[in-house]
Amino acid sequence: MKIYKKGILPIGFKASAVACGIKKPGKLDLALFYSELPAKAACKFTSNKILAAPVKLDIKHLSAGKGFRAIIANSGNANCFTGKNGLEDAQLTAEKLAGSLKIKKESVFVASTGIIGKRLPIARLTKAIPGLVEGLSEKGIDEAKLAIMTTDKFAKDITVKFRVGDSYVSVCAVAKGAGMIAPNMATMLVFILTDANITQPALNKALTFAVDNSFNCITVDGCMSTNDSVICLANGAAGNVLIDSKSNFELFAKALNTVCLELAKLIVADAEGATKFIRIKVEQAKSFNEARVIALTIANSNLFKTAVFGENPNFGRVVASVGSSGIDIKEKDLKVRLGALNKKCVDVNVSVNRGKFSAIIYTSDLTPEYIKINAEYN
Amino acid sequence: MKIYKKGILPIGFKASAVACGIKKPGKLDLALFYSELPAKAACKFTSNKILAAPVKLDIKHLSAGKGFRAIIANSGNANCFTGKNGLEDAQLTAEKLAGSLKIKKESVFVASTGIIGKRLPIARLTKAIPGLVEGLSEKGIDEAKLAIMTTDKFAKDITVKFRVGDSYVSVCAVAKGAGMIAPNMATMLVFILTDANITQPALNKALTFAVDNSFNCITVDGCMSTNDSVICLANGAAGNVLIDSKSNFELFAKALNTVCLELAKLIVADAEGATKFIRIKVEQAKSFNEARVIALTIANSNLFKTAVFGENPNFGRVVASVGSSGIDIKEKDLKVRLGALNKKCVDVNVSVNRGKFSAIIYTSDLTPEYIKINAEYN
Repeated sequence: MKIYKKGILPIGFKASAVACGIKKPGKLDLALFYSELPAKAACKFTSNKILAAPVKLDIKHLSAGKGFRAIIANSGNANCFTGKNGLEDAQLTAEKLAGSLKIKKESVFVASTGIIGKRLPIARLTKAIPGLVEGLSEKGIDEAKLAIMTTDKFAKDITVKFRVGDSYVSVCAVAKGAGMIAPNMATMLVFILTDANITQPALNKALTFAVDNSFNCITVDGCMSTNDSVICLANGAAGNVLIDSKSNFELFAKALNTVCLELAKLIVADAEGATKFIRIKVEQAKSFNEARVIALTIANSNLFKTAVFGENPNFGRVVASVGSSGIDIKEKDLKVRLGALNKKCVDVNVSVNRGKFSAIIYTSDLTPEYIKINAEYN
Repeated sequence: MKIYKKGILPIGFKASAVACGIKKPGKLDLALFYSELPAKAACKFTSNKILAAPVKLDIKHLSAGKGFRAIIANSGNANCFTGKNGLEDAQLTAEKLAGSLKIKKESVFVASTGIIGKRLPIARLTKAIPGLVEGLSEKGIDEAKLAIMTTDKFAKDITVKFRVGDSYVSVCAVAKGAGMIAPNMATMLVFILTDANITQPALNKALTFAVDNSFNCITVDGCMSTNDSVICLANGAAGNVLIDSKSNFELFAKALNTVCLELAKLIVADAEGATKFIRIKVEQAKSFNEARVIALTIANSNLFKTAVFGENPNFGRVVASVGSSGIDIKEKDLKVRLGALNKKCVDVNVSVNRGKFSAIIYTSDLTPEYIKINAEYN
């Protein structure tokens, strides 16, 4: 398996981006990812009860459709809490794109990120679609990855290539997200493109595993933004022997997991205003989920995160967090080790003497810069 | 009912404070509240699974003892995560105080607030006890309320007087707490002293009601500090006709609720680094608890709190919070009204069209100053 720290589109994919006028004039804000061949899709969406319009539409398309062809994503506006109008705007976006590409509208996924509660400038957006389609190219990912950014300080993209039999398979992904600080309301968008020839069950299984071990380890279940979406398209263009749940599955799962974990770490590293990358490992829990809950409780403690920012080795704040996690931990069983705080990467190790499961959560410190960014952003 | 915005000790109570050397030399850090008569006690302690040593001791004394006489409280050190030594230190504190006052050690409550995981300088503390006892006076509350402060910017005390039959009854309380910002790890100590003649069940019932409607509306259940304690002593010195669950109960309950709610609001107003006082009202919920959960989810959203600090009317962050509260709210049923943000007090009103219950939660904004205070505090 070879890892490239940039997005390189797999066989049969193209991408493009334009400035359609949602953000300031001239700023890229509309991206397109396109598969020349019909692709299988697997998706993970936010568990927030208020769903953005594009997420509602995507859920419909995913369950109804097959032979997926495109993802269109805008930044600067989340198209959320926009009622019927918002849903119509998302539908119109899919329709116009389908018209331009001469594909079915149900084969299109739509994604949005930005401010909540404001309608999209839908006329401007749809007017930009023909140009977006015209611009499609194999190099288009370099602009597309920029067009989905909001408060991101850098673009996030990665590619993994590996061999299946005589063929080379490629998994490429781009992500948007820079606010993975409790309570994790900032949107995360992840688009994964692969030319793997894979069955639908194997694709679903691999994505669930990869997301649970990456993006779900930097966020809190049930506390995600209204727009969070992970959309994975597999178009089979690599021509490899079919990957299913039995043959070659581990190879593909490992590649997908690598891609997701690296992007998740980049999102944390880019957390708004962060100066530290924090790795919290909880060991000796009764289950993976128990370990994860404890680690997440620490990761979401403002007092702990500010202590790390201040390089203040206040391990009592870790103790208090662990005690408030809802898990019945005894004082005598609890061991907390704080790594050196004067480094860019800080390790926290907690063991609870209850079992043999462990989990790792990645987070960042909480800084005055975080407040500044979020006080001003709109 | 008459409200005094300062602590005036009820009949039969005295207080005092000294600088025993836990904090910087000369800074008051040890307080004593004393009842000349044996008093009934009702208490509420943290639901954190890691309990500070004094809380463990108090739980034991509360269940075993009767005729309570004193509360001794130190600031600067939480005596938490200190194992057997910590428990012995708390016990020794109670014993030494009981010796000086010639009372039973089980009639003493101990409270601590400050840094976690460090042993108390117990020799210095116990050495200061005779002087503390000697200093007891009816005016001693003015110093005692200062001695329990940590990051508090101002002391918090209040007194309510009301008539029961021919007698005047007084409820006086002091509080320490200034960090009621998610995830609420900063300690809250509340000591309530009353000369009411009241039955134990009535006292318990009134305290539960008052705490649920005040301190539990500025914090998150299951996510409290290791030391949070509300200790209420009722010594009967007012000589009023007995208050029980049937006669004159409402009078007493209202007084206790007023005292607790006013202190709770003062704690929020003094939240670390806060510039705004935020009142979140959730209406039309299916139950009080449902309304409270929704309001608390909004109150604990860093993105919402920073938006208020920035006077940025980003109501989408309220919408996203509501959707992440776990309650199944439909977009069409959700109404959010944000009051003017350029004021010191900000009102947020949310209605969810599910029922007839409402709840109010008080919180503050999240500011760069909060980070500064908590990055440096130890």
